[in-house]
Formats: sequence, structure tokens, C-alpha cells
Amino acid sequence: MAQKVKLSTIGESLGVSTATVSLALRDSPLVAEATREKVKAHALEMGYIYNRRAASLRTSKSGILGVVVHDIMNPFYGEILRAIEMELDRSRQTFILSNHYDRVEKQRDFLETLMQLGADGVIMSPAIDTPASDMELLQKNGLPTVLIARSVPEADLPVFRGDDKFGISLATNHLISLGHKRIAMVGGTDKTSTGRDRYEGYVEAMHKAGLEVKDEWRIIGPRTKAAGFEAAGQFLALPDKPTAAVCWNDLAAIGLMSGIARAGLRPGIDVSVTGYDDLEEASIATPALTTVHNGQPEVGRLAARAMLDRIEGKQSTHGELTLIKPELHIRQSTSKVVERI
Amino acid sequence: MAQKVKLSTIGESLGVSTATVSLALRDSPLVAEATREKVKAHALEMGYIYNRRAASLRTSKSGILGVVVHDIMNPFYGEILRAIEMELDRSRQTFILSNHYDRVEKQRDFLETLMQLGADGVIMSPAIDTPASDMELLQKNGLPTVLIARSVPEADLPVFRGDDKFGISLATNHLISLGHKRIAMVGGTDKTSTGRDRYEGYVEAMHKAGLEVKDEWRIIGPRTKAAGFEAAGQFLALPDKPTAAVCWNDLAAIGLMSGIARAGLRPGIDVSVTGYDDLEEASIATPALTTVHNGQPEVGRLAARAMLDRIEGKQSTHGELTLIKPELHIRQSTSKVVERI
Repeated sequence: MAQKVKLSTIGESLGVSTATVSLALRDSPLVAEATREKVKAHALEMGYIYNRRAASLRTSKSGILGVVVHDIMNPFYGEILRAIEMELDRSRQTFILSNHYDRVEKQRDFLETLMQLGADGVIMSPAIDTPASDMELLQKNGLPTVLIARSVPEADLPVFRGDDKFGISLATNHLISLGHKRIAMVGGTDKTSTGRDRYEGYVEAMHKAGLEVKDEWRIIGPRTKAAGFEAAGQFLALPDKPTAAVCWNDLAAIGLMSGIARAGLRPGIDVSVTGYDDLEEASIATPALTTVHNGQPEVGRLAARAMLDRIEGKQSTHGELTLIKPELHIRQSTSKVVERI
Repeated sequence: MAQKVKLSTIGESLGVSTATVSLALRDSPLVAEATREKVKAHALEMGYIYNRRAASLRTSKSGILGVVVHDIMNPFYGEILRAIEMELDRSRQTFILSNHYDRVEKQRDFLETLMQLGADGVIMSPAIDTPASDMELLQKNGLPTVLIARSVPEADLPVFRGDDKFGISLATNHLISLGHKRIAMVGGTDKTSTGRDRYEGYVEAMHKAGLEVKDEWRIIGPRTKAAGFEAAGQFLALPDKPTAAVCWNDLAAIGLMSGIARAGLRPGIDVSVTGYDDLEEASIATPALTTVHNGQPEVGRLAARAMLDRIEGKQSTHGELTLIKPELHIRQSTSKVVERI
């Protein structure tokens, strides 16, 4: 279907050689920029489609990068993606997106597609339980890989993510400084590096302040607004009535606040709530959410740069963990402790 | 890099012919399923990567579909996408995603990439001001195209979208039935078919009820939560103090409600607000949002089916508009009129 119009035809009608047309279409610096633009504009007009499949068999680069994350509808990943996109747009790399929904099989299908297409690399937030052998397969096939948001234990790859343990301690200590002594943790999972680090950070901060951590005060699971909303009933019925909730992420926190409001209590006044990520909507929520700025733009930008450097052979593909330092953004959803009756 | 392991090597180690290996890896029904599975498992173990680039030059299908929308971070598109994804997963089609952010140039880059990759088709929500000639180029290059959510005037292509004019009339009539006479319209643009249809539907419903429509009551623009939130000040300062707002979409409505709450008024009691789309979070918001169910799952499912039918040659690629009938979902954000002072 593609390439019905021949390079020679384009050359003839512009009075340049077929070789010039070919080089111009590949943006070669051997052709003057004005000529390149003229050739490209004319080729487009004539309906010429550069056949990247054929071309990528000749050269080793396809100009395609893969990005795979848990769920692109989660704005946490969306915000990282936007930063990646801005960086790649500048280098005229096309990227292909996919969700794995934490299913290792679905992630594997996508990685195979990338290899089949001869992609130049992949930026990924690995699915829960991704085996290190899957990552080795990528390296064996010469596909540069950069991890974001989560690590894969034992995989020797560059990772860009926030310092979760430190970040959650900022939120927990803030609540403690407001006089809260009974603080629950709502949401998350132990199955990711992020989940383990955040829980540990919360427990350590509580213990350092000499406060008790009850197993019942951990509501495992919620990572979405819907789940946070549903957890409100469970939170409000917890033993010893915690006065505050450290939430896994902003989505769970915003959902929880809505559930608390539906139950007739005032989030930010009757119950203090902290989020994690500082999504764009954290500051728009009412009450505005106190949360941990998790550096999505930095993670995306750095990961994209690292990938481009690797594609250009400027950096080794081996591993190094880059932790982005989080910050606490204090807003209206946290206030001095009020005892619930 | 790819295909370091040869088909013959795989065949030898399993005691089957090279042809059998080749067919098995392409999931050919000529090979027994048990053998296919054995070959595929063994090939994967050996690190064999099927070279789709080479293969797609031999056959005409690449197994790749493109999806391009305004912004995948907008959950309206996210929910459509999820339905597309479910349908395509069943047919083992890989899809490539891109955002055009309503930039015709960016959309064009992606469409060219798809053609260069020899993609089997594209499902798209066209960027504002997409010329019909861009769509003709796709047809000229034999790329089946299905439009979602928006039409391109004069393009002869299948379109799946909601019946916007009817949908907005449901929301407007509901507010009128609650006694509201001064109703503003917040958000949207006249530059898309959706925008024009929704505004017309609102104006018609108002006129049918003998109510006045003031130009100042239209706040053009907001399509995001942040923009809806910022529009609250403008809405509350409108001449003649409208008592209700018909919003362009749920995001603008949820943002507007948050802004109204920050200003010390109670959305759903002091000011009635309707949304559009019935996103998952409409029912989670507090107050829960009265909104128009816009059939994202149906749009996605039907568009994906239409695309698969076209790839298989079962349907013509020519145009037909399929309008999904919207429904009004009444919740807590609308109530009987209260005069604001």
C-alpha cells in the first residue's frame, strides 16, 4: 500500500537527483535545509509515504520508543508521561504506549511487539512480580531499558523514582506535629518497592515519635478514587478511632475525603488526610489536599534523557537508582487534632 | 539485534521442521495447538524474537493499530480507550497510542508514523481544524480509519459518538423542571462538532421553555477540572446571578463545584450543577454529580469492532454516523431552585 509514489518521480518534478530526495527524506545533513524542506513538502503533497519498515531493516534505528505503565488513566503516570513526551518530541522520537494493568503476561506481549518492531528502547514502570529474567531478555535483545516509579529486584537497570520512605515520613511527621497520635495508613500494596518503602517510612516515623502502630490501622488496597471513597466506611469504623489518615496516593486521599464528607464529617477539620504525588488536582480539591510532591515531571524528564543518551550510546545501559527528593506541600486537608467521639 | 536464534535451530532441538516452527510462531491453524504452544514456549526460552518488520514486508498486515485522541489523560478518552483495548486484546491486535493536544501537526506526525509502520488502521478523535484532505491521505494510503467522539466535516468516514444535542437537552430540561430559569453554560468550544451541538441543544431547550439565553451566561473554554475551578469566580459574578450551570463535561463540573465550595456556597444546594460524560468519578464526587451518560464503553467497543471488520474486509471504509443515545443520571448536585442574593 505504502510507497506508491517513487523517489525518482519526486526528484524529476523538483529537478534534483533521486539520492538527494532519499537523503532529504531521512533528514540527512548532507542536503541543505531549504532543499530538505522543499523535498519533504513536495513528497507529502504527492502522497509519498516513507516506508519506515523497509528503512529500519537497513539502518539499526527505528525512531520508536516504547512506554509501558500500570495504567495511563492514572494521572500519576499521565504526568510522568507528559514530561517524557515533551522530551522525546524535541528529539523527534515516536513513542508507543501501553498499559499492563499489573499483568506480567500483558507486559510481555507488549515488550515482544517492541522487539518485533525493532524499537530503540523502552521506558517502563514494571508490573508487580515482573521477574528479573524478563528484563534480561530485553538486554539480550539489545533493547535499552529504563525503569520509572518502581524497581525490579535483581535487575541491573537504571531506575528513576521518588524517595518513598522519606516522602511518607514527611506526611506522617506533619500529622504528628499537629498533635495526631492515632494515625491510620490507607491504601497501597506490599507487592511493589513503592508500597514496601511507604509502609516502612510510616511505621518508622510513628515509632520514632513513640507512637503505637496498630495492624488494624492499615487499610491495604486502595489506589484509586473509587477505592478510597469506599474505604471511608471502614476508616470511620476503625478501633480507637484514628484522627488522621496517611494515604497511599492523592487518588485514594481525594476519594477518602469525599467518603468522609458523605458520612457528614468535615475532611480537613474532623479528620486530617494527607495524599501522595501532588497531582494537579490536589490543589483544586476542596479542601485542598496536603500532599507529598513526588516529582513526576522530573522522573519523566530524567528517564527520557537517560533513554536518549543510551540510544546514542552516550551511557551504559547498566543500573543505577536515582531517587528524586520529595517535598511536603501543606494545604487545607490537615489541621490540629480534634478528638472524634 | 533481533532474530539471533534461527528457526532451524528451534526446529532441530524440538525435532520438527523449520516450516512448522515458522507457522507455529505465526499462530497458523495448520499446526496443532499443542505443537504451537510447545514451539512458542521453546522459542521464547531460547530468546527468539519474531521479526515483525521483516514479516510485515512479506504479508500485508502488521497487527498494529493506531489510536490518537486529544489527551489520553482526560478520563473521557481513557474510558473509551479501555473499551477499545478490551476488544482489541481479544483479537491480539497491538495498539499504539498518541495524544495530539488538538495540534493538527502533531496528529499528522503520528499518522505518518503509522503509515510508515504499515499499521492496519487508525481509530481517532480528530484534532480541532483537521482538514478533510488529511483524512483523504489516509484513504489514499489504504489505512482504514474510524472516528470517535468528533466528526471531520466533509470526510467520508465512519463516526461513533454520542448524540450531543439530545444529551445536553436532557440536562437543561432537568434543571428547568426543578424551577431554574437563569441557567448558564460553562465550558466547551465552538470549534468541534461536539461543542457546536451541545451549545445548540442548550439554547433550543431554553427557548422551547420560553426562557432567555444571555450571551454573558456562556463561559466558553473550560474542559478540565482546573479550568472549571477557576471559572467559579466568573460564574458567581455573572449578571442576573444564574442559579444553575450546565457544564460542558464532568471535569469542568467537578472543578466548578469545588470552586463554588471554596467560595463558601454549597454546590447542589445553593447552585445546581450538571456534568456531561458520566465519568467513573461523577458518582464519587461529593455532592454526587447529576450528569449525562455519554456511552464511552459503547463508543469504544463499536469503534473497535468496526475497525476489526474493516481490516478483515467485512465492511466498506466509507462513512456513516452512529449516534449513541445518552441518558440522564440524576444525583445530588441538582435540586429545586434557590434564589441567590
